[in-house]
Amino acid sequence: MCQLLGMNCNVPTDMNFSMDGFYLRAGQTDQHCDGCGVAFFQGKSVRIFRDNLSALTSPIAQSLRKYDLKTLNGIAHIRKATQGEINLENTHPFLRELWGENWVFAHNGNLTALPHLEENNIIFYEPIGTTDSEAAFCFMANQLKNKFKTKPTEKQLFESIKEISQTLQENGTFNFLLSNGEVMFAFCTTDLYYITRHAPFGEVLRVDDDAVIDFRPYTTERDKVTIIATRPLTKNENWVKMEKGELCLFKQGERIK
Amino acid sequence: MCQLLGMNCNVPTDMNFSMDGFYLRAGQTDQHCDGCGVAFFQGKSVRIFRDNLSALTSPIAQSLRKYDLKTLNGIAHIRKATQGEINLENTHPFLRELWGENWVFAHNGNLTALPHLEENNIIFYEPIGTTDSEAAFCFMANQLKNKFKTKPTEKQLFESIKEISQTLQENGTFNFLLSNGEVMFAFCTTDLYYITRHAPFGEVLRVDDDAVIDFRPYTTERDKVTIIATRPLTKNENWVKMEKGELCLFKQGERIK
Repeated sequence: MCQLLGMNCNVPTDMNFSMDGFYLRAGQTDQHCDGCGVAFFQGKSVRIFRDNLSALTSPIAQSLRKYDLKTLNGIAHIRKATQGEINLENTHPFLRELWGENWVFAHNGNLTALPHLEENNIIFYEPIGTTDSEAAFCFMANQLKNKFKTKPTEKQLFESIKEISQTLQENGTFNFLLSNGEVMFAFCTTDLYYITRHAPFGEVLRVDDDAVIDFRPYTTERDKVTIIATRPLTKNENWVKMEKGELCLFKQGERIK
Repeated sequence: MCQLLGMNCNVPTDMNFSMDGFYLRAGQTDQHCDGCGVAFFQGKSVRIFRDNLSALTSPIAQSLRKYDLKTLNGIAHIRKATQGEINLENTHPFLRELWGENWVFAHNGNLTALPHLEENNIIFYEPIGTTDSEAAFCFMANQLKNKFKTKPTEKQLFESIKEISQTLQENGTFNFLLSNGEVMFAFCTTDLYYITRHAPFGEVLRVDDDAVIDFRPYTTERDKVTIIATRPLTKNENWVKMEKGELCLFKQGERIK
């Protein structure tokens, strides 16, 4: 199994406070040591930094802080391998271009089988590595592109992703984050929590090392930031636990579906 | 216009000596300051580091040395914008999955138009940014995937890429590097040179700053390394200038077609 961290905001925000706690789970407060990756969207583009080392020992992961990257949508993943060797091609998040946009996907869980594509469907996407996760992402992207030649409405996209995800979770555990840099989808089979922060901001206390941050100096009245994670990252906030089979859509820092 | 740097080897090799000279052209010995990017293949996977800053000022580019990344195939690009804004989505190299493999593309030149895909062709790939370069890459990938449902032989691939490239250069300058991590294609309209290094290795002298390296302590009898660049990077080696319309295929460090 693995752990997921996502952020969706209405102003470009760094993920440092969340990432610092999250990465402690890659060998210190938990055992997710088989690779790490993070995607930071910047406009229509995305920067992905991945390593097959643990987030705590990877020089690539450890350099991130000094880049001071701010984003509206970020997805991080620390891996504990279930299916697929420990190597770079099996490291999340995965990326594909869909309708002229970058789509980034990271998964926590384990799927024992995937449905077959319908016979007359076109295969637009194929996995590069050997994980169930990348295969599931390709299955989803193939379903979507066969159904919609051009990008559908947000409502159509939401309904389709929900339907595909509920089918996929029939074969196991399928918690995932998916973003195109504008919106963030989160789907839960077993473990996914979120918290939306907005004014008045205050102090929060990190679960993994009791570090404290006061968000007031860094925020304005209109800022909205949602953090999504496999397990809550702070102690003194009311994280919402998602239900089995629930799909959330976050945009501009808050849940809209 | 931009500049290209590629490396193809038979043993994992770092690109440091070449990159250090090449990056001086991003503001010091030349003016390619509108972004930089480099792709390092690792097995079937690839790490891409891009920035919309100059290679000489980008903290991301400046961190690369300490990761000590060795690769069989690397592609680097420094941009001087012709078409498309200076932003991250217009920064080379570009990436698409084709036949379950990562394919990375970087371009130097300027295309004023692109042919249309034939009417019954499927659109597998669409550009994300607004450069002629990414559009040309998508055109090529669409042509290839429409023609070959699964990966063709090396000979078929070579012939097809050559034909597509010669068509594309009818509308301008089309120097490019293209790799899937196993082989490296280089196509020349105007400016592309290569040098193949093998035993006995010796000292080489860098063009951009007169730095010297002796490769002997770092190499073995059987090592082969080909470097491809828009302009030669060393003074005391016989770089081969490619012809207009010529496609080269490099594998295991040497030219095979």
